[in-house]
Amino acid sequence: METDKPGIMDGKVASFLSASLKGISQVILIENVITGLLILIAIMISSVYLGVIAFLSAVIGTLVGKFGGANEESINQGLLGYNSVLTGMALALFINGSYTWIIALAGAAVAAIFTAAMMHFMKNTEIPILTFPFIVLTWFILLAAYKLKALTLSSSLVPQDLTHWELNITGKVNLLDGIFHGIGQVFFLDNTMSGILIFIAVFWGGRKLGLYAVIGNAAAIIIAYVLGGEHALIVLGLYGYNAILTIIAVSAVFKNQHHRYALQSGIIAACLTVPITAGLSAWLLPYGLPALTMPFVLATWLFLGARKVMPNL
Amino acid sequence: METDKPGIMDGKVASFLSASLKGISQVILIENVITGLLILIAIMISSVYLGVIAFLSAVIGTLVGKFGGANEESINQGLLGYNSVLTGMALALFINGSYTWIIALAGAAVAAIFTAAMMHFMKNTEIPILTFPFIVLTWFILLAAYKLKALTLSSSLVPQDLTHWELNITGKVNLLDGIFHGIGQVFFLDNTMSGILIFIAVFWGGRKLGLYAVIGNAAAIIIAYVLGGEHALIVLGLYGYNAILTIIAVSAVFKNQHHRYALQSGIIAACLTVPITAGLSAWLLPYGLPALTMPFVLATWLFLGARKVMPNL
Amino acid sequence: METDKPGIMDGKVASFLSASLKGISQVILIENVITGLLILIAIMISSVYLGVIAFLSAVIGTLVGKFGGANEESINQGLLGYNSVLTGMALALFINGSYTWIIALAGAAVAAIFTAAMMHFMKNTEIPILTFPFIVLTWFILLAAYKLKALTLSSSLVPQDLTHWELNITGKVNLLDGIFHGIGQVFFLDNTMSGILIFIAVFWGGRKLGLYAVIGNAAAIIIAYVLGGEHALIVLGLYGYNAILTIIAVSAVFKNQHHRYALQSGIIAACLTVPITAGLSAWLLPYGLPALTMPFVLATWLFLGARKVMPNL
Repeated sequence: METDKPGIMDGKVASFLSASLKGISQVILIENVITGLLILIAIMISSVYLGVIAFLSAVIGTLVGKFGGANEESINQGLLGYNSVLTGMALALFINGSYTWIIALAGAAVAAIFTAAMMHFMKNTEIPILTFPFIVLTWFILLAAYKLKALTLSSSLVPQDLTHWELNITGKVNLLDGIFHGIGQVFFLDNTMSGILIFIAVFWGGRKLGLYAVIGNAAAIIIAYVLGGEHALIVLGLYGYNAILTIIAVSAVFKNQHHRYALQSGIIAACLTVPITAGLSAWLLPYGLPALTMPFVLATWLFLGARKVMPNL
Repeated sequence: METDKPGIMDGKVASFLSASLKGISQVILIENVITGLLILIAIMISSVYLGVIAFLSAVIGTLVGKFGGANEESINQGLLGYNSVLTGMALALFINGSYTWIIALAGAAVAAIFTAAMMHFMKNTEIPILTFPFIVLTWFILLAAYKLKALTLSSSLVPQDLTHWELNITGKVNLLDGIFHGIGQVFFLDNTMSGILIFIAVFWGGRKLGLYAVIGNAAAIIIAYVLGGEHALIVLGLYGYNAILTIIAVSAVFKNQHHRYALQSGIIAACLTVPITAGLSAWLLPYGLPALTMPFVLATWLFLGARKVMPNL
Repeated sequence: METDKPGIMDGKVASFLSASLKGISQVILIENVITGLLILIAIMISSVYLGVIAFLSAVIGTLVGKFGGANEESINQGLLGYNSVLTGMALALFINGSYTWIIALAGAAVAAIFTAAMMHFMKNTEIPILTFPFIVLTWFILLAAYKLKALTLSSSLVPQDLTHWELNITGKVNLLDGIFHGIGQVFFLDNTMSGILIFIAVFWGGRKLGLYAVIGNAAAIIIAYVLGGEHALIVLGLYGYNAILTIIAVSAVFKNQHHRYALQSGIIAACLTVPITAGLSAWLLPYGLPALTMPFVLATWLFLGARKVMPNL
C-alpha cells in the first residue's frame, strides 16, 4: 500500500540491529538498545573475540526467529536472541579447539529453536521461560564433548567424585570485588572494569533496576559468607550473578501492583539462590558442569509461580 | 458488620491451631485435627525436639500461606502445612550442628512457597502436588551441604559409587516390625510404639484408610521380599511407607465412583513403589540422598494421571 | 440391538490382532498392520524368543487399554501398545535370569498405564508423548536391578566413572552396515537381514517414509563421523536409529501444510540427535544405562514445540 521511500531498507536494518542489541540486553531482563550496546562494549573490553561471538549469536537468534516465522513483537523485543547470546558465549568459553566458533554459532541457532519450543511448553503456566533453554542446551553440548572427539572441554571443567569431595573455603573475601564480578559473571566476565560498565548498563535500563542489583548481590554475598561458601567462588562473583538476575526479575520486571511485598520477596529469592547454587553445583560435580544461570531460573520460577497462588508475595 | 463478641479471638487461634494440626495429618492425606494431634504425640514419644520442630513447621507453613494471601480454604485444610512439616523434620534429622533448627524452620517456610508454586504449575493437570515440594527442596538443601560449611550432613548419608556397589540382602525379616515401622517411616520414625500410635491415627481418620494402609504395606513388603530387596531396609519399613501413602491416595482419597477397580489399582500402585524405591535409591546412591516419599509421588501420579485416560482404573 | 451373527467373534479377534500389530508398527510412527507383521518377522529372524515377547507385550498393552477403558480409537490405532512392545523387548534383553519374561511382560503392562498417564499430562501441550514412557520406565527398572537381587543386569551395561573416562574412536566405519543396523536398532536388532526387512516394512507404510529414513540415517552417520563419534557405535547403528525416527516424525507424521521447511527441519533435527545421543550417553555413563530412544524424543519435542511458535519450521 505504501510507496517505497528511500530509507525503508535502512529502517529494516536498523530494526534488525535493534532487535539484536535488545537480545543482548534481555540477558539481564532489560529491553533497551543502549543497555545492549554498553554490555557489548563491556564484553569487547574483556575479549574482542567473545564480543564478536556474542553479537553474531544475537543476530543468528533473531534471524532464526524471522526465518521460522515467530511473532514479530517477540523478535523485536529481543526475546528470540538472549538465549542465543548466552549459548554462543558459553560454548566459545567452555569448548576448546580451532572450530569452536562454528559450534558456538550453531549452538546459538539451536538455542533460538529451543526458546520457541519452551515458549510453547510454558505458555499455559503464564511464567516466563527465562534462560532455561541456554542452560540445558549448554549442559548437553558440554556433556557431548565426553563422547565426541571434535569437542574438547575446557580444562576448567573437571568431573569430581562426591565420595572424595573435600570442601575448602579458605581465602580472603573482598566484598567490592564480589559485587562487580557478580554482575560481570552474568556474561562470564570476571574483570572489574567490565563489571562496572555492565552496572552502568543496568542503571541506564532503569535506576531502580541498578539499585535492586546492588541489594540482591550484597544480600547473596552475605548469605554465602555466613553459610560458609567457598571464598574463592564468592570473590569471583559466582554466588552473586544469579541473585542479581533473580531480584530484578521478582521485584521489578515481573511484578505488578498486587504484589505488596515484591521487594521483600525479591530479596528472599536472591538469598535462596545461594543454597540453590550450592546444591546444584554439588549435583553437577560428577559431570564437571557449571551451574550457569539455573539457580536464577529456579528461584524466579519458585516465586513467580507461588505468586499466582499467594498474590501478596 | 458483626459486633465483636468475646471468643472471636479464641476462634481465630482455634482455627489457626486446627489448620496447623491438619497440616500434620495431611502428610498422610487425611484432614483431621485429632489425627494430627495423635501423630504429633507419636513424634513426641520418639523425640520431643522433633515433635516441636514438626509443630512449629506446620505453624510456619500456615503462617506463610496467610501472609502470602493464599486461598483461606486451602489453608484451613492444612494444604499449606504438610510439606513444611516434612521438610522441617527431614532437615532436623539429616543436617547436624547447633543451628540446625534455624535451617529446619527456614526450610519449612520455603516449603510453603514451593507448595504454592507447584499448585500453580500443576493446576491444569488436575493432579494433586502431593509431597513433591518437600522432596525436591530437601534434596537441594542436603546437596548444598557439600558446598556450604555451615551445613553438615548426617553421617547416615554417604555417597556411594555404583561402579563399586555390592548388593547385600542378608538379615532376618520380621513382618510385624516391617509393618509398624512402615507407617512410622512416613514421619522418619522407626520405633514400634510410634508406629502403632500413627496406625491408630489413620484408623481415626477412617476405618477404610487404616485397612488399606495394612493391605498396601503388606503387599509391598511381600513384593520387596520376593524381588530380593535388602532385608535390613524391609525391617526398617523403608519399603513400606511409600506403599501405604500410595494405596491411601489411589484407592481412597483421590477416588471417585467411575473408578471401578480403585482397590486393585491401589494395590498394584503400592507394589510398584517397590521397584520405584529401588530404582530411585540406585539413582541417588552417588549423591548419598534418601528417596524420601518420591516413590509414593511417582506411583500416585502414574495412576491418577492414567485414570484420566483409563477411567476404570 | 443387533442379532449375534457368526463371525462377530472373529471380527473382535481380528480387530484385537490388528490393534496389537499396529502397536508394533507404531514404534516407528506408522499405523499399518502389514508393517507391524513384517517387523515382527524381522524380530523373529533375529530371535524367536524376542519376537514372542514383542507380540505378547503388544497384546498386553492393548488389553490394559481395553480393561482400563481407554478411548477405542486410540487402542485400535495401536497407541496403547508401542511403549509396551519396546519395554517388554528392552527388559528381555537387558535383564538376565530365568524369570526375565515375567518381568518383561509385567513391564509391558505398566508401560501401557504410563502411556495413559503421559497422554493426560501432555494433553494441553498438543505434542505427542512418543516413546517417553518406555524410556523412563526401562531406566527405572534397570536401576532397580542394583538394589533387587531378583533382577540381574546384562553384562553389557556397565556403570563408568566420568573422572576416569577415556574416549576411543578407533575402528573402521562401513556406511552400509551403519544404515541397515540403524533401522534395526529401533528394535534392538543389529543383524543386517532384520534391518533390511524393517526398511521394507517402513517403505510399505509409505514410500516417502522409507526415503526420509534413509536421508535421516545418512545425515546422522555423517555428522557422527565428522564430530568424531565412536566408530564402533556408528557401525552398530547406535548413532542412526534416533535420527530415523526423528526425521519421520518431524518431516512426515506430525507435519501439516503450514510447515514450509518441514524436510529441512527434519534433517536438522536428525543431525541434532547426534550431539543429544552423545550428551545423554555421557550423562548416563555413571549409571551404565543405554540412551534408548530418548534422543529421538527430545529432538522431536524440540521441533514440534518450536513449530507452535515458529510455524514455518
